[in-house]
Amino acid sequence: MTDADERLNLADPQQRPRFTGLATFFRAPVAESAEGLDIALVGVPYDGGVTNRPGTRHGPREVRNQSSLMRRINQATGAAPFASARVADIGDAWVAKPFELSGAHAEIEAFFAQVKAAGARALACGGDHSISLPILRALAGDAPLGMIHIDAHADTGDNYGGSRFHHGAPFKIAVDEGLLDPKRVAQIGIRGSMFDPDMWKFSHDSGMKVIYVEELEARGWRACMADALAFVGDGPIYVSFDIDALDPAFAPGTGTPEAGGLTMREAMGMVRMLKGRDIRGADMVEVSPPFDTGGLTAMNGATIMFELLCVMAGGP
Amino acid sequence: MTDADERLNLADPQQRPRFTGLATFFRAPVAESAEGLDIALVGVPYDGGVTNRPGTRHGPREVRNQSSLMRRINQATGAAPFASARVADIGDAWVAKPFELSGAHAEIEAFFAQVKAAGARALACGGDHSISLPILRALAGDAPLGMIHIDAHADTGDNYGGSRFHHGAPFKIAVDEGLLDPKRVAQIGIRGSMFDPDMWKFSHDSGMKVIYVEELEARGWRACMADALAFVGDGPIYVSFDIDALDPAFAPGTGTPEAGGLTMREAMGMVRMLKGRDIRGADMVEVSPPFDTGGLTAMNGATIMFELLCVMAGGP
Amino acid sequence: MTDADERLNLADPQQRPRFTGLATFFRAPVAESAEGLDIALVGVPYDGGVTNRPGTRHGPREVRNQSSLMRRINQATGAAPFASARVADIGDAWVAKPFELSGAHAEIEAFFAQVKAAGARALACGGDHSISLPILRALAGDAPLGMIHIDAHADTGDNYGGSRFHHGAPFKIAVDEGLLDPKRVAQIGIRGSMFDPDMWKFSHDSGMKVIYVEELEARGWRACMADALAFVGDGPIYVSFDIDALDPAFAPGTGTPEAGGLTMREAMGMVRMLKGRDIRGADMVEVSPPFDTGGLTAMNGATIMFELLCVMAGGP
Amino acid sequence: MTDADERLNLADPQQRPRFTGLATFFRAPVAESAEGLDIALVGVPYDGGVTNRPGTRHGPREVRNQSSLMRRINQATGAAPFASARVADIGDAWVAKPFELSGAHAEIEAFFAQVKAAGARALACGGDHSISLPILRALAGDAPLGMIHIDAHADTGDNYGGSRFHHGAPFKIAVDEGLLDPKRVAQIGIRGSMFDPDMWKFSHDSGMKVIYVEELEARGWRACMADALAFVGDGPIYVSFDIDALDPAFAPGTGTPEAGGLTMREAMGMVRMLKGRDIRGADMVEVSPPFDTGGLTAMNGATIMFELLCVMAGGP
Amino acid sequence: MTDADERLNLADPQQRPRFTGLATFFRAPVAESAEGLDIALVGVPYDGGVTNRPGTRHGPREVRNQSSLMRRINQATGAAPFASARVADIGDAWVAKPFELSGAHAEIEAFFAQVKAAGARALACGGDHSISLPILRALAGDAPLGMIHIDAHADTGDNYGGSRFHHGAPFKIAVDEGLLDPKRVAQIGIRGSMFDPDMWKFSHDSGMKVIYVEELEARGWRACMADALAFVGDGPIYVSFDIDALDPAFAPGTGTPEAGGLTMREAMGMVRMLKGRDIRGADMVEVSPPFDTGGLTAMNGATIMFELLCVMAGGP
Amino acid sequence: MTDADERLNLADPQQRPRFTGLATFFRAPVAESAEGLDIALVGVPYDGGVTNRPGTRHGPREVRNQSSLMRRINQATGAAPFASARVADIGDAWVAKPFELSGAHAEIEAFFAQVKAAGARALACGGDHSISLPILRALAGDAPLGMIHIDAHADTGDNYGGSRFHHGAPFKIAVDEGLLDPKRVAQIGIRGSMFDPDMWKFSHDSGMKVIYVEELEARGWRACMADALAFVGDGPIYVSFDIDALDPAFAPGTGTPEAGGLTMREAMGMVRMLKGRDIRGADMVEVSPPFDTGGLTAMNGATIMFELLCVMAGGP
Repeated sequence: MTDADERLNLADPQQRPRFTGLATFFRAPVAESAEGLDIALVGVPYDGGVTNRPGTRHGPREVRNQSSLMRRINQATGAAPFASARVADIGDAWVAKPFELSGAHAEIEAFFAQVKAAGARALACGGDHSISLPILRALAGDAPLGMIHIDAHADTGDNYGGSRFHHGAPFKIAVDEGLLDPKRVAQIGIRGSMFDPDMWKFSHDSGMKVIYVEELEARGWRACMADALAFVGDGPIYVSFDIDALDPAFAPGTGTPEAGGLTMREAMGMVRMLKGRDIRGADMVEVSPPFDTGGLTAMNGATIMFELLCVMAGGP
Repeated sequence: MTDADERLNLADPQQRPRFTGLATFFRAPVAESAEGLDIALVGVPYDGGVTNRPGTRHGPREVRNQSSLMRRINQATGAAPFASARVADIGDAWVAKPFELSGAHAEIEAFFAQVKAAGARALACGGDHSISLPILRALAGDAPLGMIHIDAHADTGDNYGGSRFHHGAPFKIAVDEGLLDPKRVAQIGIRGSMFDPDMWKFSHDSGMKVIYVEELEARGWRACMADALAFVGDGPIYVSFDIDALDPAFAPGTGTPEAGGLTMREAMGMVRMLKGRDIRGADMVEVSPPFDTGGLTAMNGATIMFELLCVMAGGP
Repeated sequence: MTDADERLNLADPQQRPRFTGLATFFRAPVAESAEGLDIALVGVPYDGGVTNRPGTRHGPREVRNQSSLMRRINQATGAAPFASARVADIGDAWVAKPFELSGAHAEIEAFFAQVKAAGARALACGGDHSISLPILRALAGDAPLGMIHIDAHADTGDNYGGSRFHHGAPFKIAVDEGLLDPKRVAQIGIRGSMFDPDMWKFSHDSGMKVIYVEELEARGWRACMADALAFVGDGPIYVSFDIDALDPAFAPGTGTPEAGGLTMREAMGMVRMLKGRDIRGADMVEVSPPFDTGGLTAMNGATIMFELLCVMAGGP
Repeated sequence: MTDADERLNLADPQQRPRFTGLATFFRAPVAESAEGLDIALVGVPYDGGVTNRPGTRHGPREVRNQSSLMRRINQATGAAPFASARVADIGDAWVAKPFELSGAHAEIEAFFAQVKAAGARALACGGDHSISLPILRALAGDAPLGMIHIDAHADTGDNYGGSRFHHGAPFKIAVDEGLLDPKRVAQIGIRGSMFDPDMWKFSHDSGMKVIYVEELEARGWRACMADALAFVGDGPIYVSFDIDALDPAFAPGTGTPEAGGLTMREAMGMVRMLKGRDIRGADMVEVSPPFDTGGLTAMNGATIMFELLCVMAGGP
Repeated sequence: MTDADERLNLADPQQRPRFTGLATFFRAPVAESAEGLDIALVGVPYDGGVTNRPGTRHGPREVRNQSSLMRRINQATGAAPFASARVADIGDAWVAKPFELSGAHAEIEAFFAQVKAAGARALACGGDHSISLPILRALAGDAPLGMIHIDAHADTGDNYGGSRFHHGAPFKIAVDEGLLDPKRVAQIGIRGSMFDPDMWKFSHDSGMKVIYVEELEARGWRACMADALAFVGDGPIYVSFDIDALDPAFAPGTGTPEAGGLTMREAMGMVRMLKGRDIRGADMVEVSPPFDTGGLTAMNGATIMFELLCVMAGGP
Repeated sequence: MTDADERLNLADPQQRPRFTGLATFFRAPVAESAEGLDIALVGVPYDGGVTNRPGTRHGPREVRNQSSLMRRINQATGAAPFASARVADIGDAWVAKPFELSGAHAEIEAFFAQVKAAGARALACGGDHSISLPILRALAGDAPLGMIHIDAHADTGDNYGGSRFHHGAPFKIAVDEGLLDPKRVAQIGIRGSMFDPDMWKFSHDSGMKVIYVEELEARGWRACMADALAFVGDGPIYVSFDIDALDPAFAPGTGTPEAGGLTMREAMGMVRMLKGRDIRGADMVEVSPPFDTGGLTAMNGATIMFELLCVMAGGP
């Protein structure tokens, strides 16, 4: 390997300080497409679906920046994702026509369809939570997927602001379109005040398992996650982690913060329990750098992405 | 209802984004007085009683601002305070002559006396903790009240800086004046270093129940709060929540932070246990926006106020 | 006047501290509509037209907050706008269906049409610069208006991101629709790098007067503004002030900052030269609180709005 | 000189990095009193006189912290104040009974009376501007002093909030008490909106020279300061520099910011013109760290103090 | 005691507000050397050993600043360290020649050797973690010490960046040099991703007890700390607390943050369990103010130092 | 050009929003080496030469991030650098052994020697100012270069902290080594307090032209820069721009801020006057993101780099 090549590959941090070089996710190599990859790291800098505070369009860049703090091996689990799998940062699923929500979603879907066509699995970094819908449209194949969904909000809402496609509704639509099997969807960390007495009625009616944060506080995260995994079963799943699942002390930089959320010890523990599952794709969404303080949210978002990568990459 | 009227009432957030409109507490309607209300939301922008870092005079405005993140219904308890009670923001109990502490307190007392005379109960937003004294003077009727007091400090100190009336002493004076029955006062979350070996001697001598944060760490918040409620009994109570009860990671923006405090999951759980109690008034105090980072403290303060509102409003 | 009434009117700050009360623009009284007003202060919390950094949807609330630092009389000019004119804050021209740009503009236009129908002139606070277009649609009557436009960008661009209506294009469309007479439009403070060699070709081709910041640096603001006023003439004009006209040291909190801009002494001096002109409406736009540092941009934005109010209100 | 002594004296920064050691003003030596000094550096951590945003009680500590950036010699003027004069940091004129304004002022006056009795001149760091009054009471001897007063506000107001002694009034009282000769007082940089048409009527009526910032913008700081110095004449003077004289881009951390102020180049140039004057004492006030961004205001305040020290210390 | 003396001693905060005076650790008296002291508080403003984000050279000053929030007595334990022991702030072990790492360490070692020679024990405030090595060199006497080490990283790494002496390696070298007995070293809170599969191989191979944060989450801090203390035994120990042991929500201002760390309740509880141990010296390191938000990390660092002081000082 | 290729080249921002994609300087293409380039953009993330506040090691990454705000064409001058020259971001001249200053410099020199060998000119982004020395060593050929040096400090100091090679001395050494011809070196913007009466004696003694900021304030930047250019003459030059030349209001994020500096209008104007000169290399140094507020310093640094690129690239 030549010197020049080395500069484009994952730096060996024993020699190369972490503050150097272009910021890619985890300082992984850049690839022009998902061809030849097992896992494609993708930014989705789109926040056209937000209903309150914007800014997640700046998420992928800042999560990349903070992800330089990650190293190559997971000390807690022994996972070595860059050794177990071919992983690269394939850039952003950016949107050419951002002023119209459903068209923007079509652009995002097309990008992820290419990833799937290349035989790779995607680990996406939002952007707002509306992006999970076009990703699921691209990834869900012949049969609906199950889902582990860690979030403060069930995101199974109805029309808002004249649109069905905002960041509070992706999973209702995904069920409606047959992309998700609600009987294999578990939602964990749900909390916060509501506009309607039954804002997440669709979750309950469709048969999803909803685990509120109060249950998690009472029973502990291990028991709750074990229940969720049992509910979802061993089939193929999608994993969606909304950073607002964390308490705002851990994730102030997000559009819809809700007091009383998860700690990072809980969140990391829960993601690690996904090891061995058949994960077809995953996202970590809703990091909004303009509302962040000192990069804490982006750093925690990068950490969650690293834990997701570890359970997706196979190996130890 | 005309369009114009609608703009002055509580917005229906399914149609109206939360970042719009004038910032009132929870986007509740504005009222010119407490007449006809069940619960009056009141700001008390006064920090003349602080002994260290000032800034809580800016608290009410910023708590109003962050309280737009709240919605109408409490998902965890089902409480719908705006449906169960007539609630409005009646503005600020501002102080015309701030340069003299006891005169300022008299002004505040007069404001809350009007609220009581109107038949409404007050939920106040400080301001420093010295404001609890004039509020209690206005609210306490013929018999002393009990109190649930969640705080890092017992606030039963003596003279400081030549004054009896600062923010570290309101509850000693309130007992002295017969406004509080110390045998029905429970203080929870107490911690921090002390000037004197027995800085809160008055709490112990007068018979208050003092629950230190170390006990809460060891036994859990449910058991501690249950003990506090049993101690206080079923009679009429006042509730005072000092935001510095929270750990500084959750509430950096306060004048006297003490490491090792409550999480928001603990604090919200404890406030919810007040449901069904005879709450005659309540306050949430000591949010100091100039020391806040990213509005986190004000948001958590608004959340605590919302939980207080829910247990004061009756209904489900 | 009763005590209660007094609380809803403009506070007499000799008695009432500026940090108290609900935040309206300049602590002006709230009105339900523009009926009976000479000048209506309006927030337009909409940023659906931005092409890079969002956040101006939060502008009106934070400009209102910082505008409490303003007092009633302009020391430099003697203007007393609240005495010379009936002025009130009529709330926000909020958008019910934000996910589609041209529909959003129609909602904004309808709001300002009501202001005009009531016989009042509007002083608007954005929101992104795309809002000037619907305001002009509402305000421009039978004949096109002239315009004094202070900005870093000429905002006469073409399609971007698949839309004609973004915040870099309002004034091209306004000319196309006959709302502005380009021969009476002067643009001041223009600077920054460009995508195309002639990004603002439309300004030049249509006959607008474009004064770059380099000319202002060389000749001084008085001479430049005098030229602009001579060009625009004495007829009816609209005034649009984009806060990014200021140097980023004075206005960091904006979506498209450009180094090398105006100081506040220059900007305030230029706005004061508008005295005596026939101003039919005005806006101050592009304050983005999530990117602001310490409220500086919002405070400067509020100051510019106050200076605009002073020249709109007549009197001394 | 022993090693131990060296550690307590002004570090030789060629050997000792500026981020080390206890933060005294300019890393000057600490002295227990003003005995034997020519110039005593004094903090006055008191903000009980503010009418809007508090926090200047934290000013002296943060100005000390930032003043470590200063070195020993003034490059522009050649002044070497630590060589020309015996200078030390004598700590804070702190207030034991802060809850009552006039008593607090008496405590401050007593401290400065000791400085004067020791034969030293004081260079004070506020605190709010109300502290100039007790300092003048202590320093003004048999005859009233002249004053160069650089500020956004004339601070010759009347009663406010029930008190005569707040930070908007010290110089009216100082004239009333015969401490200042208004015919030898020049105020420079005045601007901002007003509550009353003639808020600073006392300045004009008593014969002070008031130079508004608009005049400074038009004529330049050299001409304005030359006029001010000619007006004040060669007799003994006090110098008071309110950091809000600076534009908020240069001094965001202050209680009453006013857009359109001085740059640091202007302010430093003006202070340097004081060389050779008979300065009996000076203050730099109104730095409010809780509202500062990145320490900029405290650093500029420390720089102004250093320039004041240079013109007070004599020598080249 | 004269008034002047009183100003140099520990202020009686019942009379003296905490924001006044020069910032020493806990507002303890200043001493020129460790002579006559039991415990010497020392800053070590050196960050030449960092491998990623710098800034801890500014740690001692900001920890001193925030430590004014501490008072004299530990409410939870009754410890009164300033009564039980002679304690003073002896300033900084600053480095005259910072550009070469091992020379810098020699300077630091010389400073602490003087402290030991004076018969005092040192409580140091870093600086980066590389400083523990020269401190141990100075303190370790004839026999190697045990150590309680609370940290996210075991800091027993090998060469990095061409140096053995960086902040990720001090304890390997200390064992190699016979300063520490690895069989009496317990490391608690270890976590984070790794460069190598066995980055802390030396800890395991040499026989240290390594308690990962996952074990702490599962078994609780009391049990883990009890194990650590049993492992270390009753002999003389050193205590090293790296602030990055805390979760980044509690300590954002550090050079190598790792998600999923300790809360302050856990950390304080663990330090308190050290009571009665034979502590020969201690440090609290890696507070980096330029990366801090609102002083939270420095405040928590000061709190940990206070808890360390309490267990070092003897008494109740 | 395929879609995949397009993603790696300079985005057409008419289609691609500026917040998307990996952050390279100006979103220029990435190149593995300088081969085939006219101008190589290089980051030098090294701050081992600082004497006070560190952090510039993080400069290149954040300047790259903010440089996305730049577009392709200079509106003021018409320069189109990406059309006139082959320009790419070739990554960082990172340092493998950072703990020893002169070795680190050798590594940096080797990197720039490769750039020169490839026939490209380098535009570097620091890092601290010590990096100019190894760059000059690499670039200066047979004859010494002239230099335009815009800075608050002359950086011609002597030993400090036991080293000759720190960031206050590069240009003395460069003259000593024959890399610079002091008779063709002009230094502009010099100011700030001094340790020694003649800290920059070497500049004067060696015959450099030193233009203090006071002269610039008095005579204007055009005249000063014209003098500097006349002094330097038409021969080959190096250009070094230290961001602390700017006033701290424009560049708070730097290690050695000095009040009273340049505005961005002045700085940009001065750089533009370099058009047509024979610039052999250039740097923009001393941006320290940990001390920055809101990215302002990095944005201004990126803007200065863009102006340097425009005068280096030839064309219109």
